[in-house]
Amino acid sequence: MPAVTVPVAMRWSDMDAYGHVNNTEFFRYTEQARIEALALVKARPDTGTLVVRHEVEYLVPLEYRSDGVQVDVWITRIGGAGFDLGYEVATLGPASGDDEAADGRGGDTEDAGERRRTVHARSASTMVMYSFSAAAPRRISPEEREFLEGMTGPEVRFRRSGR
Amino acid sequence: MPAVTVPVAMRWSDMDAYGHVNNTEFFRYTEQARIEALALVKARPDTGTLVVRHEVEYLVPLEYRSDGVQVDVWITRIGGAGFDLGYEVATLGPASGDDEAADGRGGDTEDAGERRRTVHARSASTMVMYSFSAAAPRRISPEEREFLEGMTGPEVRFRRSGR
Amino acid sequence: MPAVTVPVAMRWSDMDAYGHVNNTEFFRYTEQARIEALALVKARPDTGTLVVRHEVEYLVPLEYRSDGVQVDVWITRIGGAGFDLGYEVATLGPASGDDEAADGRGGDTEDAGERRRTVHARSASTMVMYSFSAAAPRRISPEEREFLEGMTGPEVRFRRSGR
Amino acid sequence: MPAVTVPVAMRWSDMDAYGHVNNTEFFRYTEQARIEALALVKARPDTGTLVVRHEVEYLVPLEYRSDGVQVDVWITRIGGAGFDLGYEVATLGPASGDDEAADGRGGDTEDAGERRRTVHARSASTMVMYSFSAAAPRRISPEEREFLEGMTGPEVRFRRSGR
Repeated sequence: MPAVTVPVAMRWSDMDAYGHVNNTEFFRYTEQARIEALALVKARPDTGTLVVRHEVEYLVPLEYRSDGVQVDVWITRIGGAGFDLGYEVATLGPASGDDEAADGRGGDTEDAGERRRTVHARSASTMVMYSFSAAAPRRISPEEREFLEGMTGPEVRFRRSGR
Repeated sequence: MPAVTVPVAMRWSDMDAYGHVNNTEFFRYTEQARIEALALVKARPDTGTLVVRHEVEYLVPLEYRSDGVQVDVWITRIGGAGFDLGYEVATLGPASGDDEAADGRGGDTEDAGERRRTVHARSASTMVMYSFSAAAPRRISPEEREFLEGMTGPEVRFRRSGR
Repeated sequence: MPAVTVPVAMRWSDMDAYGHVNNTEFFRYTEQARIEALALVKARPDTGTLVVRHEVEYLVPLEYRSDGVQVDVWITRIGGAGFDLGYEVATLGPASGDDEAADGRGGDTEDAGERRRTVHARSASTMVMYSFSAAAPRRISPEEREFLEGMTGPEVRFRRSGR
Repeated sequence: MPAVTVPVAMRWSDMDAYGHVNNTEFFRYTEQARIEALALVKARPDTGTLVVRHEVEYLVPLEYRSDGVQVDVWITRIGGAGFDLGYEVATLGPASGDDEAADGRGGDTEDAGERRRTVHARSASTMVMYSFSAAAPRRISPEEREFLEGMTGPEVRFRRSGR
């Protein structure tokens, strides 16, 4: 499996007045997982990556858990000056509440060894490489391409068509 | 124009170490604008709306401005138990920095009377109606439908195809 | 009254799973109010102010309100290279819940013309002037001192002694 | 040493436009550390603890680090219906930047075995026990008192007098 699994710590205050993790925080979880997964790509000090597009599909409500979430991150496309990422935000083991989507959104659960894995959201981002010193987009370097190719996986399996 | 324009205050701390508003905060701006625009729909105390899908396309970097952002919110689809929303996150007047997208992402600007309007991001959400007391999805009521129909507009003009 | 009253917009997501504005967000409200109140002091591009100490006393739980909070900001002390600030985070008019502190923390309410003013928290900060170009603390300039003297008020009336 | 050391993960987005962790996030780090350290006290479902006062002193600017912060939490006072907490927010090992306080705020560093420990902030909170079912403050139970007594330590060594 080419995905990198990044544990991301939750904070109790990520929950909102509904008693669930606020939708916005999923975005932050995937941002943090992406930063950790792509640390190598960001190694050149004057460069970076910019998010130009992001999409998220919510599957199962999530409550604060002291063991946090497990975010799978992988590459779904590599272009000349950018790439696409896929993510799954999951928890392992007994969920803190019922993990069937009471709202019909349909949770995804599967056995992960002994611990059941519940996917709470799937996401996708489109990134472009950007040179801050040149203030311009730039090409993916051979080293970066090699790194990204090492974590290439399938398209994100969204359930709803966006458009 | 059927869109409701909701002014959303920015906070200086919305900016991250790049000196731009963090990508995640755009999500929060549209969440806040949606809540204000849909206050009527949320009027029944035991009901609510759940976001099941969200998509955002970033066009022009945004810096903190004391006059905040203007978020246009409109309805792009009404179904039996849910609806879709479109958003534009814009600023009016001279941007606090250069408002041409230095990274080639291509800003959208247009004259809004005397003040130039710059679109920093476009978004779309899919919502489902949800009854907390029944812990189940529910139908859109006739009153809600009438309200939503009053703010119906065109599909969001995304530039990149997501899939 | 020398205090500057800064309206600060709330966001629905400022509330946590207790259904109240999270304690941390009060800090953000006063940060935002301070930034707006001290815009003049920050006008020199290579300078700034650093918070070296902050204290907050919570009086009345706060829920999200579409009309936001009113933050009074004033100066309680001016030194050679820094100053102290006092704050009151208040709402006007009928509170969104009961505004008596059910937990015995004892709300402060008073008539503000026709609309009742409820103080939810009082805070104090100690600031130092800082030159980013010199990477060192710096003296308060005469212009800054004049500005700060114009908003000088009494010590913050905390109820609990901290130490 | 009676303090409980709670590792708290940082998020890259905790940094603000100054390139340092935003002052407000320190509050969130200590909130999260407190919640984890006091998990036992919160075990009774209808009860909780409320923060009625919080104080923080900033010593050394903090940048995002993938290994996060180490928050020491301990009890400084136990009353009949509440208690006081002390905190130190520290990092271990080489800081990501220079760890001398360039602004003269005077960092605290010490050897922690082989890894140098830098204290970035010290904090103190006053908590009251609160019963949500009774909507009223309540006494500390014998079990809670025993738990709290097990982590009792000295007063927080603030450098500046607050009042």
